[in-house]
Amino acid sequence: MSGSICPLEWRYGSTEMRRVFSRRNIMDTYIAVEAAILKGLEEAGLAPSGCWSKVESLKGTLDPAEVDRLESRIGHDIAAIAEIISNRIDEPCSRFVHLGATSYDIVDTTWALILGEALELTRARLIEVIKLLVSLVEKYRDTIIVGRTHARHALPITFGFKMANYAYELTRSLQRLRELNERVVRSKISGAVGTMAGWLKQGLIVENTASSHLGLKPHLITTQVAPRDGFAEVIADLAILASQLERLSLEVRELMRDEISEVYIDTSEVGSSAMPHKRNPSVPERVCGLSRVIRGLLVSSMENIALMHERDLTNSSSERVIIPHAFLIIDQMLLDTISILRGLRVDEVSTSRNLELTQGRIMSECIMVKLVLRKGYSRIQAHELLRKLSRASIQENKHLREILMENGLYDDEIGECFDYSKYLGNYSELIDRVLKYVREQIEVGSM
Amino acid sequence: MSGSICPLEWRYGSTEMRRVFSRRNIMDTYIAVEAAILKGLEEAGLAPSGCWSKVESLKGTLDPAEVDRLESRIGHDIAAIAEIISNRIDEPCSRFVHLGATSYDIVDTTWALILGEALELTRARLIEVIKLLVSLVEKYRDTIIVGRTHARHALPITFGFKMANYAYELTRSLQRLRELNERVVRSKISGAVGTMAGWLKQGLIVENTASSHLGLKPHLITTQVAPRDGFAEVIADLAILASQLERLSLEVRELMRDEISEVYIDTSEVGSSAMPHKRNPSVPERVCGLSRVIRGLLVSSMENIALMHERDLTNSSSERVIIPHAFLIIDQMLLDTISILRGLRVDEVSTSRNLELTQGRIMSECIMVKLVLRKGYSRIQAHELLRKLSRASIQENKHLREILMENGLYDDEIGECFDYSKYLGNYSELIDRVLKYVREQIEVGSM
Amino acid sequence: MSGSICPLEWRYGSTEMRRVFSRRNIMDTYIAVEAAILKGLEEAGLAPSGCWSKVESLKGTLDPAEVDRLESRIGHDIAAIAEIISNRIDEPCSRFVHLGATSYDIVDTTWALILGEALELTRARLIEVIKLLVSLVEKYRDTIIVGRTHARHALPITFGFKMANYAYELTRSLQRLRELNERVVRSKISGAVGTMAGWLKQGLIVENTASSHLGLKPHLITTQVAPRDGFAEVIADLAILASQLERLSLEVRELMRDEISEVYIDTSEVGSSAMPHKRNPSVPERVCGLSRVIRGLLVSSMENIALMHERDLTNSSSERVIIPHAFLIIDQMLLDTISILRGLRVDEVSTSRNLELTQGRIMSECIMVKLVLRKGYSRIQAHELLRKLSRASIQENKHLREILMENGLYDDEIGECFDYSKYLGNYSELIDRVLKYVREQIEVGSM
Amino acid sequence: MSGSICPLEWRYGSTEMRRVFSRRNIMDTYIAVEAAILKGLEEAGLAPSGCWSKVESLKGTLDPAEVDRLESRIGHDIAAIAEIISNRIDEPCSRFVHLGATSYDIVDTTWALILGEALELTRARLIEVIKLLVSLVEKYRDTIIVGRTHARHALPITFGFKMANYAYELTRSLQRLRELNERVVRSKISGAVGTMAGWLKQGLIVENTASSHLGLKPHLITTQVAPRDGFAEVIADLAILASQLERLSLEVRELMRDEISEVYIDTSEVGSSAMPHKRNPSVPERVCGLSRVIRGLLVSSMENIALMHERDLTNSSSERVIIPHAFLIIDQMLLDTISILRGLRVDEVSTSRNLELTQGRIMSECIMVKLVLRKGYSRIQAHELLRKLSRASIQENKHLREILMENGLYDDEIGECFDYSKYLGNYSELIDRVLKYVREQIEVGSM
Repeated sequence: MSGSICPLEWRYGSTEMRRVFSRRNIMDTYIAVEAAILKGLEEAGLAPSGCWSKVESLKGTLDPAEVDRLESRIGHDIAAIAEIISNRIDEPCSRFVHLGATSYDIVDTTWALILGEALELTRARLIEVIKLLVSLVEKYRDTIIVGRTHARHALPITFGFKMANYAYELTRSLQRLRELNERVVRSKISGAVGTMAGWLKQGLIVENTASSHLGLKPHLITTQVAPRDGFAEVIADLAILASQLERLSLEVRELMRDEISEVYIDTSEVGSSAMPHKRNPSVPERVCGLSRVIRGLLVSSMENIALMHERDLTNSSSERVIIPHAFLIIDQMLLDTISILRGLRVDEVSTSRNLELTQGRIMSECIMVKLVLRKGYSRIQAHELLRKLSRASIQENKHLREILMENGLYDDEIGECFDYSKYLGNYSELIDRVLKYVREQIEVGSM
Repeated sequence: MSGSICPLEWRYGSTEMRRVFSRRNIMDTYIAVEAAILKGLEEAGLAPSGCWSKVESLKGTLDPAEVDRLESRIGHDIAAIAEIISNRIDEPCSRFVHLGATSYDIVDTTWALILGEALELTRARLIEVIKLLVSLVEKYRDTIIVGRTHARHALPITFGFKMANYAYELTRSLQRLRELNERVVRSKISGAVGTMAGWLKQGLIVENTASSHLGLKPHLITTQVAPRDGFAEVIADLAILASQLERLSLEVRELMRDEISEVYIDTSEVGSSAMPHKRNPSVPERVCGLSRVIRGLLVSSMENIALMHERDLTNSSSERVIIPHAFLIIDQMLLDTISILRGLRVDEVSTSRNLELTQGRIMSECIMVKLVLRKGYSRIQAHELLRKLSRASIQENKHLREILMENGLYDDEIGECFDYSKYLGNYSELIDRVLKYVREQIEVGSM
Repeated sequence: MSGSICPLEWRYGSTEMRRVFSRRNIMDTYIAVEAAILKGLEEAGLAPSGCWSKVESLKGTLDPAEVDRLESRIGHDIAAIAEIISNRIDEPCSRFVHLGATSYDIVDTTWALILGEALELTRARLIEVIKLLVSLVEKYRDTIIVGRTHARHALPITFGFKMANYAYELTRSLQRLRELNERVVRSKISGAVGTMAGWLKQGLIVENTASSHLGLKPHLITTQVAPRDGFAEVIADLAILASQLERLSLEVRELMRDEISEVYIDTSEVGSSAMPHKRNPSVPERVCGLSRVIRGLLVSSMENIALMHERDLTNSSSERVIIPHAFLIIDQMLLDTISILRGLRVDEVSTSRNLELTQGRIMSECIMVKLVLRKGYSRIQAHELLRKLSRASIQENKHLREILMENGLYDDEIGECFDYSKYLGNYSELIDRVLKYVREQIEVGSM
Repeated sequence: MSGSICPLEWRYGSTEMRRVFSRRNIMDTYIAVEAAILKGLEEAGLAPSGCWSKVESLKGTLDPAEVDRLESRIGHDIAAIAEIISNRIDEPCSRFVHLGATSYDIVDTTWALILGEALELTRARLIEVIKLLVSLVEKYRDTIIVGRTHARHALPITFGFKMANYAYELTRSLQRLRELNERVVRSKISGAVGTMAGWLKQGLIVENTASSHLGLKPHLITTQVAPRDGFAEVIADLAILASQLERLSLEVRELMRDEISEVYIDTSEVGSSAMPHKRNPSVPERVCGLSRVIRGLLVSSMENIALMHERDLTNSSSERVIIPHAFLIIDQMLLDTISILRGLRVDEVSTSRNLELTQGRIMSECIMVKLVLRKGYSRIQAHELLRKLSRASIQENKHLREILMENGLYDDEIGECFDYSKYLGNYSELIDRVLKYVREQIEVGSM
């Protein structure tokens, strides 16, 4: 709300997600990790018992401005925080704060916790999107519309079938977002070069105690930092999800064209300052625009993997930008998609009109198949014949049925092709098949 | 070998991987898929029994030049192939070839089979890389070298510990490459808009029969094409792997610097045309260079997800480039890494010399920790003290031990810090922990 | 034609562009550069006179397979070529071949020549595209169509005005492609680390003579290699051009939708293997798909800038892929665009129908402006009023004229708004303004 | 300072650049553009004289929170601002605010002005960087250091020569940043679809008057928005510059390694929280890290070019992120580079030591050249001989001079090769050549 440069401060993303990435939450998590490590030191006999809870009680008390001031003097944000914590608690506890730890024990374990929160919120919103898609599948299961390939009329499908494809695709993302949890929500508590040397052979106790306290499993080995492939995988999975949401929004934008009008969104359209008559699909357009930003962040994230030796610092500055931006943007995209899907309605007048637009020519595959199966044509002959008849239908501006009649090819068998509802194949079983999978996955997610 | 433009034709990638992506193999796989669909038609009662094997027997007989000629006449490569197949087999089978199918039933199911082959070969090479890393871990488990953060001397580690980190990171990639198999190696056999309408309600039988014959599970639902998130995930996982291999090669390049010389590669270095004394680390440099190409392909691949409606064709041209290029490049990178690791040797004269380079200052953390735990200092006091003593060591060009003595801070307890082997923390247990995980994962992979 | 993996070998790009990047042309250019440097050595008194022409006469005689065999033995392609050249010419010339030069004197000066050729061909094709756009501007200067923002009907424009925007945008690219010539088509002839030391203080003579002979200006200073910002700039400018061509193809694809039908392409559409009635806009779809590949190559190219010290080799492998691929792909995209524009026709029946589709509502801005300027409304009042009237027009399915009449707002002044030709603003002067600029730029290009 | 999510709010970028992209400055510029357009309406006789200055006087009075509130009600930020302006000024002026204009007349003309400011500040900082490089060139013009290719010792250069390469490369960026000004700092004042129709044939007067008032030249033609190739070019040029700055920082990081120590930075190094002895090159590491973010933003920016028809809105959300982020990040990178270069010192003890590290072998090219020119060897013979002698020098751990003596190849002529200062080629003339160019360019920039 208060920022003045970056639209994530006030424009994009929810308050919940903004809370996760707020300096306040990040600092409180730093404190929680310092406390957990101190608990580990206590368990290992390297610090007096009970100190850790004094650190933990400092949560909510750090002032970012104070940290910034100290950082600008000593040049290191985590060192500044450790020093402030030390100053706030009494001896003998004070002296043990951060002992044997390195900054990235704090930073990366904090990232793990923050990523855990952010991923959970993201998955929850994604499940909401998928549930809305499932409702649309059910509501419009049998509502026939024209299917389009190459943006041209192809064959009839149903709107529910169309939505079922999105439900399938997004549930695949849900699985991906779950699988990566195992690889990225892990503590990094292993000291300056990953050997735990500062804890005088007691490192595994420190790591184990601290990790359990924080509810995390540890990375099995690390350098000074957690491996960066995990961070890249997070952004890759978000970029895939973003691109899928873009696909859905692009669908909506196209189906909302004045000439198509097959869907509309109740309430959420926004006007033009020049043209009073206009209602623009600005929410789905925003989804498409933001998707590009996440794809860009992926490039940066991939470059962070190849850190030198036991680490260099080049990941630090870019991750401060990449991670919060990626999650706040996907958050906005998911919220926008929820709002789109809540308001999405099919205009059945338009869908019917459009089905008739090409005068039966979208049924040429059906006729071709029947010519082969029932009339003894070869597929290639039948394909060539239908190509000619379709062309005639266009040139003479006549319904394909009429052209077939004129050519003596029409009978009841062929005529049945023009009943769209009879040429939807196994759409309904396919919908059932995918809904079964989607529901299983959503339930896993709710547990 | 025979190409003249693209270095993948003769320079990068193995013969095995080149075979997978050769036009020959792609065309043979197209034929196999056409045959499998025909078998499905037969099972569904839509085509006479036994036709499919006639199609399958055409494998190895298609001439790319013939296909190109027909494609340039009719403007469609799959249509050309279907026509050639039809012409090669007799009636009554001929007429049923490709019946009710759409080009992307063939293309995407072929991609699934090709991706399956390519991923398997990639994983096999990756396992070889990991096994070589495991050997290096074992060979150099206790060989002490200086750990470096920010490219500066930090603390001692062992070369085996360093290699164990790479083994961990790459095994994470192995897991990723396995997990995605489930999402991408799937048949797409569902006709023009995914409803299977051309198979007159028998679509599930066609799909099931054909998929089983090809050893694939089907996508649960599709548009005209398989969902493109799977393709993007493949390239993302390859880009992560490429970046990890780059990290390893960057490590080697840096440790091979004249001033560092901690490792060398037996035999594989290449000279300069200007400077006869030079041996360049051109193999690890190539790994780093090729990594950039795969990261670039990822960008293109992500953009392919948002296809319009039941599909547009924009994925087609870019995938013809992206997919073979990504796999042939990762193949070269893995082969290069295998060659690097086979020849990789530690120069223990240099590692010892470098450990002494900063005159004991790399042990300052150890001294700090002991001052806190044994001498009652606070961590911040101890940190500040060691910072001053380190600076004195630099300015006076004296060993830190000497500076400590001059300041009355040296005793046996502190002196022990200068025995590097005593300040390696839990490195050995961490190595064991990670090797256990790596071996479990490798064994899964070998099954 | 002969390759088997990469579609650039036979599918994408012209024969002319393929010739530029063929191994044959690259090797001949290597020879030309070796000859030019030898001429420089002669001029500097470091080699006997007349040797250079013996080298130059070897053009066309090198067999790639021979080079590959020697490279696989000595591990360096340029060293192999230098050795083969030496072996082919007699003493005393033989011994001076490549003397004092480094591989990248040859490689980068060759790239400069090849880039010069490739950029010239690219600009020539781009000028052809722009000229075709100019013809369309002239042909359809006054053909009224609806302008669309957010894919919704906005206000009338003319098709010529639409095309004039593309002519403007692409001419900006033409300027960019010219400006970069000055930065990238430059020789790099400065020896192993850029100091020219191997030419014993005569380096400037060598460089100057060789560069003049090749028709190049030299880089003012270099490391072992020419600065890589130039290469990145080339790919960036191609990626911008590619994205502009994508914009044009996207326009065509959308205007070709069955529901819109405002344009069609004579002859170049391609059919579906499943659906005999379908004609797909596969050429403009290919343009959009290939554009993604160039954008991806840009990412790789940017990463090549930060080479270490006097250079590392990481640019080498990636440039072998990036540069030919980028140019062959843009070549295909330009050829495709030429073919699209040659066949592009406006269907005036459809444009007229679509203009009427929203029943006069697209003229609401005109009415709003007149209410303010002629009737004393404030802009905000007028905007709000028109918003209500437009909504009424939709809900009651009446022409906006009728709604205005019912509300007593219609008169001759307002009625004029429904004559689209009267509300095209300064379109014609704007077209003239842009054509003047475009023609000036094209003429520069033709000189 | 006040933000809580994005590090650009308080951490990266200068106060000056933050001011340019502050909501305050953006809103004030919106007002300036609305005023300028109103002035144009007045000049065209479409609004009463003198209104524009009333609008302009509102600069500094808009409260972002007020705009946000109104935007959240009417769903459009520019419409909200236009309404607030209207409400703040009296009739008859009030009614003419924004008349005939579209939001992107305001937004894109504001971007042009903001980009103009931001580019000017960027170029000023870049000139400061280049001047510091020029000082280093002069200071260390003759300070010999080893040149490195493939991170291996190659041949001697001077530190001034090394810096002169950076001065050349960055001055090329300065030129690029100037050339693009002409293409992107242009007004877009042409109404809803670019025809200026809302200004009733007086559009060119409105555009001309408003543009002159703002000190801008107009785009020659537009759709609803200015062409996006210009925005992509800006980000591409910043990404190139960022990558060049990364190259310089990578150089510094590597030369600061403990084993190399050829340079150090006075004062700016930062310590480790774990290891008291450590001083990390965190400023150049940050430069390298931030460079990745700009490269990522480039990807997003390229995708914004292909807007649909007369525009879609997909560029809007992503540009709100891309443009300020790119400029604030390059700003930080330039400031960091200035701080690095101000403190950069060569440690001549280390440079001398490193020159000796390979025992004369770096001079093998010199010996090879002399064997050819003075002793009648062929280049290939001489190359092969030196390769053997260099190997002997390594294996026997002897200076190359000694090996040459043992092989009877040493004489005064050859011995001169070991005087590094005699084998620096034309370095000094090359420095002069590049400084001349750099100074010319800097002076243009200062004007």
